[in-house]
Amino acid sequence: MFASLCHLLVLISFALPGQPQSPNRFPETSPAVARYAEAASKISQRGLRELGAYSLLAELTDKIGARLSGSPQAAAAVEWGRKTMLAQGFTNVHTEPVMVPHWVRGETEQASLLASALEGNTDQKLAVCALGGSIGTPRAGITAEVVEVQSLEEARGLGERGKGKIVFFNRRFDPTLINTFAAYGGAVDQRHSGASAAASSGAVAVLVRSMTMANDDEPHTGAMEYEANVPKIPAAALSAKAADTLAKSLKNGDLVHVHLKLDCKTLPDVESANVVGELVGTEKPNEVIVIGGHLDSWDKGVGAHDDGAGCVQTLEALNLLKRAGLHPKRTVRVVLFMNEENGGAGGRAYASKKRPDGERHIAAIESDSGGFAPRGFGVTAKPEVFARFGAWMPVLEPFGADKLMVGGGGSDVGPLSAQGAVTIGLEPESQRYFDYHHSNNDTLDKVNARELELGAIAIALLSYMIAEDGI
Amino acid sequence: MFASLCHLLVLISFALPGQPQSPNRFPETSPAVARYAEAASKISQRGLRELGAYSLLAELTDKIGARLSGSPQAAAAVEWGRKTMLAQGFTNVHTEPVMVPHWVRGETEQASLLASALEGNTDQKLAVCALGGSIGTPRAGITAEVVEVQSLEEARGLGERGKGKIVFFNRRFDPTLINTFAAYGGAVDQRHSGASAAASSGAVAVLVRSMTMANDDEPHTGAMEYEANVPKIPAAALSAKAADTLAKSLKNGDLVHVHLKLDCKTLPDVESANVVGELVGTEKPNEVIVIGGHLDSWDKGVGAHDDGAGCVQTLEALNLLKRAGLHPKRTVRVVLFMNEENGGAGGRAYASKKRPDGERHIAAIESDSGGFAPRGFGVTAKPEVFARFGAWMPVLEPFGADKLMVGGGGSDVGPLSAQGAVTIGLEPESQRYFDYHHSNNDTLDKVNARELELGAIAIALLSYMIAEDGI
Repeated sequence: MFASLCHLLVLISFALPGQPQSPNRFPETSPAVARYAEAASKISQRGLRELGAYSLLAELTDKIGARLSGSPQAAAAVEWGRKTMLAQGFTNVHTEPVMVPHWVRGETEQASLLASALEGNTDQKLAVCALGGSIGTPRAGITAEVVEVQSLEEARGLGERGKGKIVFFNRRFDPTLINTFAAYGGAVDQRHSGASAAASSGAVAVLVRSMTMANDDEPHTGAMEYEANVPKIPAAALSAKAADTLAKSLKNGDLVHVHLKLDCKTLPDVESANVVGELVGTEKPNEVIVIGGHLDSWDKGVGAHDDGAGCVQTLEALNLLKRAGLHPKRTVRVVLFMNEENGGAGGRAYASKKRPDGERHIAAIESDSGGFAPRGFGVTAKPEVFARFGAWMPVLEPFGADKLMVGGGGSDVGPLSAQGAVTIGLEPESQRYFDYHHSNNDTLDKVNARELELGAIAIALLSYMIAEDGI
Repeated sequence: MFASLCHLLVLISFALPGQPQSPNRFPETSPAVARYAEAASKISQRGLRELGAYSLLAELTDKIGARLSGSPQAAAAVEWGRKTMLAQGFTNVHTEPVMVPHWVRGETEQASLLASALEGNTDQKLAVCALGGSIGTPRAGITAEVVEVQSLEEARGLGERGKGKIVFFNRRFDPTLINTFAAYGGAVDQRHSGASAAASSGAVAVLVRSMTMANDDEPHTGAMEYEANVPKIPAAALSAKAADTLAKSLKNGDLVHVHLKLDCKTLPDVESANVVGELVGTEKPNEVIVIGGHLDSWDKGVGAHDDGAGCVQTLEALNLLKRAGLHPKRTVRVVLFMNEENGGAGGRAYASKKRPDGERHIAAIESDSGGFAPRGFGVTAKPEVFARFGAWMPVLEPFGADKLMVGGGGSDVGPLSAQGAVTIGLEPESQRYFDYHHSNNDTLDKVNARELELGAIAIALLSYMIAEDGI
């Protein structure tokens, strides 16, 4: 793009009366816009000047890095969260203990496609990583013939043909789904439940195509669970390229054998904690709006998008409200949840903890879909409550965060729904998320400081409006 | 983010009657949505499966690379464009000759902050590049004292204090502007017109802070122009970090000298061409909708976002219409413009060329704001025409491309406005664009294949709807 000053002047200053405004102008038609214009301006100017969310994310990812539940790094992250809240002057800063699983990857994870299936004479390494929660293989590893399936049903239906085999789940993301979370939702059952489905047909291990739209050689980990009363077998993710290699060998019709070696295991549960701090409401302090993300991550990459982004956006959102001198009528509370990735213990513990008499959660905003440019919010609420959000959205239009979607909030705030809280999820642009998710690609350099901050600003504003107007 | 199947199911399938739909559903309220649902589905499914825009972009950037007007690479890009259109079966494929400037960077571009201003004893290199159109320095370079200014006015007002100096324009992007194009628009006068403003006060050269939000060490080039009757002086861009270094030295109050050496120059104009191909309208072939981007780029990076993206999106848009078996009533024509970056000769030549009797341009869509996820379209039109676009936008909602903004179209389609064409610009997410723009950072790996394709799909659909319904 050339200077094109004319075009830019048009973009900035030309507005037809009564037509939608350019993205740097607040539309003047909504009562909420008039009411919250000053707050929006204060919050966004400070946020975009200081980019505080990104500074926090750099601290968390550079100083602590990956922080899987139960690890020393997760404990360090709890302490970091507490100290950050104190440094920002939040009120009632404390931790709330929760017992979490302690799965460790171990030193070895290897998979090889054995030479018999190959034109060359040497075994071929396949990029692989254990799925979280998997048992390890015997020390010598497992060598077995591979059978490919596309679904849990197909794995369960293998019967005798599954016996003694490594079952390879190779169903891809549906690329025609525009929102990549929908594509993830359509494939992740293989990762989560593939092991027990295959074990029910006598399989000895499973390999699962990575949950990603990318076509690269990074394996993507993630949670799996075993069903009761089915033998536990090792489960690992193959990179997209490794899955293609394996599928190609199988297409030739030859017998294909893979050697798999994992020394991951589950240790006894560990005490960890959620981290909590707030801005106490001036008029109705017992009505609480929770905003939060999860402090734990997988042990690949540094959890920059998942979910360092959600933690620092919600910390920054409360900080922006404070520093803008806003005193909301209701309480806005940041909760950094522990153990979202492999258990959800933090979300359940927070919701089930006894709170002071009269306190109730009216809404909960979760940010756990990456630190990309915000698009809007998903909201789970009754129709008449949902409509209230429609009135607030124009305030978020200048930030590109005004799309109101049906259904929102992730697994951390989900348990608050049963208590009557409206659950809400920040919905950022989704295209790049699963290129990084749960892999070594999820690093700080994939996060754009301004995109991240715009999400923090949107959360600050929406939580403030709820805190002012109520639900 | 954990599997959270419940949440995903909610996201995908839960819809309150009469409320906005999730992004994977077509809202059923707009007549345009019903009318174009089948076309949208055909186009988007094929587009997202095949990701044709990205394949073309990889070809253009890997095989040809940077393609500055007048260069052999620009000539190769013209031939590539023509062959691509023929291969895709476009109709009336041809080139339209246009004379373009031929500026060359040369071998040397260097700037050093001289040791006298530094605590250490050696000169410090400053990351620098010539601005497009600049004259070179004498062979030995220019060494002069530096004076910092924030604006053209300040440079013009230097008077005697400017004489013999290197004037350093250091006004940053305003970070509080949400749309980065607005921030660019508020700073780019320094790059475009700084040399003549400084020369009018007797300066011998200018250094301009790079036009970027990023804080890195890459200089960003771009067009500058000299005013008549003012001495021409060399003009170069400093990286953001180099600008900060220089500003810091100046703050100490010492005399600061810089040595600058550039051997760029302007050679005689060269014949080049726009590349044109179309899908002829079945009912009103004389009513033409142009879609296009520019084939030339700067000579830094490979012009992946600027404007490889716009070229391949519009090629792919027409290809998608063809392959979906759609036969629009009016003609949709792809124009790959030459010389947008440093002259705009292609845009002017296209508009001024004599066309067959009766043919008229009713609309022109330009993509020249990067290959990021689409947000919507900017439209320059009379209010009653603008309102028509409001009716089409719901069709683009599933692709996140439904935001309608006032004012659109860039410098290539701008000249068609005088002939009565509605000019339209694809508006993608803007936050990352100026991190890459006109620098070595503008490479293929910064483009996400699905984001790029969604823009192509949005252009295909909007051009199809205009071609069916007219303006």
